[in-house]
Amino acid sequence: IEKEDSASIRTETESLFPADITGLLSELETESAKFLITRLDVERGAEILADMEPNERRDFLKAFTSEEISHFVNLFDSDDAVDLLNEQPIRVREEVIALLEDREQARFILDLLHYDEDVAGGLMQKELVKANVNWTVNQCIEELRQQAEDVGKVYAVYVVDDFGKLLGILSLKKIVLAHKNTRIESLYDKDVIFVETYRPAEEVAELMQRYDLDALPVVNVQGKLLGRITIDDVIDVITEQASSDTLAMAGITGDVEEDDTIWQQTKARLPWLLVGMMGGILAAKFISFFEGDLKIIPAMAAFIPIIGSTGGNVGIQTSSIILQSLADKTGLDTTVGQRLIRMFAVAFINGIIISTIVFGFNLLIGNDVQLALVVSAALMSVVFLASFMGTMTPILLEKIGINPAVASGPFITTANDLIGYGVYFGLAHLLLNL
Amino acid sequence: IEKEDSASIRTETESLFPADITGLLSELETESAKFLITRLDVERGAEILADMEPNERRDFLKAFTSEEISHFVNLFDSDDAVDLLNEQPIRVREEVIALLEDREQARFILDLLHYDEDVAGGLMQKELVKANVNWTVNQCIEELRQQAEDVGKVYAVYVVDDFGKLLGILSLKKIVLAHKNTRIESLYDKDVIFVETYRPAEEVAELMQRYDLDALPVVNVQGKLLGRITIDDVIDVITEQASSDTLAMAGITGDVEEDDTIWQQTKARLPWLLVGMMGGILAAKFISFFEGDLKIIPAMAAFIPIIGSTGGNVGIQTSSIILQSLADKTGLDTTVGQRLIRMFAVAFINGIIISTIVFGFNLLIGNDVQLALVVSAALMSVVFLASFMGTMTPILLEKIGINPAVASGPFITTANDLIGYGVYFGLAHLLLNL
Repeated sequence: IEKEDSASIRTETESLFPADITGLLSELETESAKFLITRLDVERGAEILADMEPNERRDFLKAFTSEEISHFVNLFDSDDAVDLLNEQPIRVREEVIALLEDREQARFILDLLHYDEDVAGGLMQKELVKANVNWTVNQCIEELRQQAEDVGKVYAVYVVDDFGKLLGILSLKKIVLAHKNTRIESLYDKDVIFVETYRPAEEVAELMQRYDLDALPVVNVQGKLLGRITIDDVIDVITEQASSDTLAMAGITGDVEEDDTIWQQTKARLPWLLVGMMGGILAAKFISFFEGDLKIIPAMAAFIPIIGSTGGNVGIQTSSIILQSLADKTGLDTTVGQRLIRMFAVAFINGIIISTIVFGFNLLIGNDVQLALVVSAALMSVVFLASFMGTMTPILLEKIGINPAVASGPFITTANDLIGYGVYFGLAHLLLNL
Repeated sequence: IEKEDSASIRTETESLFPADITGLLSELETESAKFLITRLDVERGAEILADMEPNERRDFLKAFTSEEISHFVNLFDSDDAVDLLNEQPIRVREEVIALLEDREQARFILDLLHYDEDVAGGLMQKELVKANVNWTVNQCIEELRQQAEDVGKVYAVYVVDDFGKLLGILSLKKIVLAHKNTRIESLYDKDVIFVETYRPAEEVAELMQRYDLDALPVVNVQGKLLGRITIDDVIDVITEQASSDTLAMAGITGDVEEDDTIWQQTKARLPWLLVGMMGGILAAKFISFFEGDLKIIPAMAAFIPIIGSTGGNVGIQTSSIILQSLADKTGLDTTVGQRLIRMFAVAFINGIIISTIVFGFNLLIGNDVQLALVVSAALMSVVFLASFMGTMTPILLEKIGINPAVASGPFITTANDLIGYGVYFGLAHLLLNL
């Protein structure tokens, strides 16, 4: 690569898949990467660009003129083209669209640009093969031949009426096996699952998973076929969803990646750290009321951590299990009461075991029996309270329409900590006659 | 449904998709559900069974005889049949296989039964359409016609030589567009991505995502085509992976669901609670060394929670970001040193902000300036140490081959708590001249 010999680059990369070349490029300097990509066939270059991570691509394309970008975008599927253009400054975006040679592509892109990224319209691509219900199989194959170059993966032909309204679907398998002169009308499958442009991406993902679909047609409110969503785009939605939920539970706002700027990372992390800090300050204020007690029995302080960490751990475990059932839309047919009873049963077993061990430890190191009792009673209460909070918070957040994952992690931990210290010092104050 | 009128059940469910009927069944008692499913076409019954959750299905099928089960399994794809049989007791499994009318299906199932669930061989199905490289397109269509009933979604025809060795792939689109007498040899695509039976499921998922594949052929070590893995099975792998990682981070072992038995839930949760408890006991033992100090300055105890929670929160945030980059195999091309520097930069900003606010709070409530300094210095150190631990632990665990998600959550929190208290009490002891 260093030698910048274009003929050898072509031969050497010919046997590689675009996804592999993408990996290779990300290890090169922008200059060498640009050199390499412009030496390849423009088709391969386009595939590679379509495959890059958004952040990486945005930085990489800064080295290209709008005209150079437009050559690649010409060959993109419309949905990928829109993704790429949305990463660009408005000026570049407008220039690239104006420079596109393929005017149909430009029209597709303009159609798609006004959908949000997280609805069906933002996921769909305009490229698809459709056939009029009055055609024969032969006419359909002819259409397929014309569209074949533009449509990467066909999956199926969509059957529409004279007004473009979606009527049904015809699988490629059926086309292969049918007689040429059969009318589509007698062949196609009317049971087609479709989605309206405004439906949220999560719903699209759920639908495609539920019915094991490879492609999902998208219609407007009148039922007119506008585009289709393919399974590969939905896999991205699913993995992004999972990763952003995990981050949210870890107390990170938004989709942060390790190579984001230090400022972006701070912005995503600081808010929840401040929530934790406020909790800590409240705890400090609260414990300071009991300074008199601590002066008399300083050993009490030693159990502050175990109260806090047990509450935190139980709360996060419980809320994770509830979050998982909430995310799994097939849903449990249980009432909140039944859920609580289960959680309390588990809490009872775990609580008994933990508080018994800690009680034993306290006696072993020669602590006062009364203090040992207070610590174990507090642990038991904390396990129950944390199970209650961990069950109810996600359910309530979901009910009022907040993503339950967002607030479950740090929020529950902080709340459990405070409740735990309250129970502990309260019990101690009462039972130790302070 | 209550009326148990089979004719009306058939008409009413005719317009529903199998996935919807599955949802409906899960809300019925086993008896009514069995009644309903046996009143449907056996094809639809099979689709519904294939679509059920494993746990639900295992319980549901207890009400069926082996012979009844075998009628359904006859119509299953081989991979789904194996999944169902693996849920059954060995006796039922053997009986069902012996009772299968479709002997080819029985052979497929026996072939697949000896693969682990979490390798390519365990994900694959035997149903696929293959064509000999020496055939013409017409012969290929004939084969497709014969196989069409057994193979749900075709996607593509696999091209093999006389010994069954995988040579390449031929898309349905190409078959539709080709002339009937063209030889496959001149038409098929030699660049086929395949996988060996023993490759782990995660690798399969990664491969299919990376190259946007709908189906992936599976070969043995000699390159002989044995089966294929379709995208819908891989989506399940991806979502299961994401959910088990989230659970692992929350300190839950194994794939627990809310409707598992109380004992299963306890078994999955107790181990990490005990880790947390051990940490708490160690913390208690450690803090008790400083009882003398606490007797003099009981206000010190009030800041134990904020030290613990800040360390915990920073550690989990950091490790989640690192886990995310580790999971994203396209990988960052950064050294461990560079990663640490970025993390420390973020830690510096977050640490400064938090310790300044806490310092202000301490002065505000009239605490000793020296104590305020100790608390803020300890917070600052804890933020740095937790960032270090949160970065290094997942990287090291991944290096020694342990799933980094498993040990990151509770382990990091516990370790950070202990380190935090050490720093806090150490600093206090030194700086407050105790």
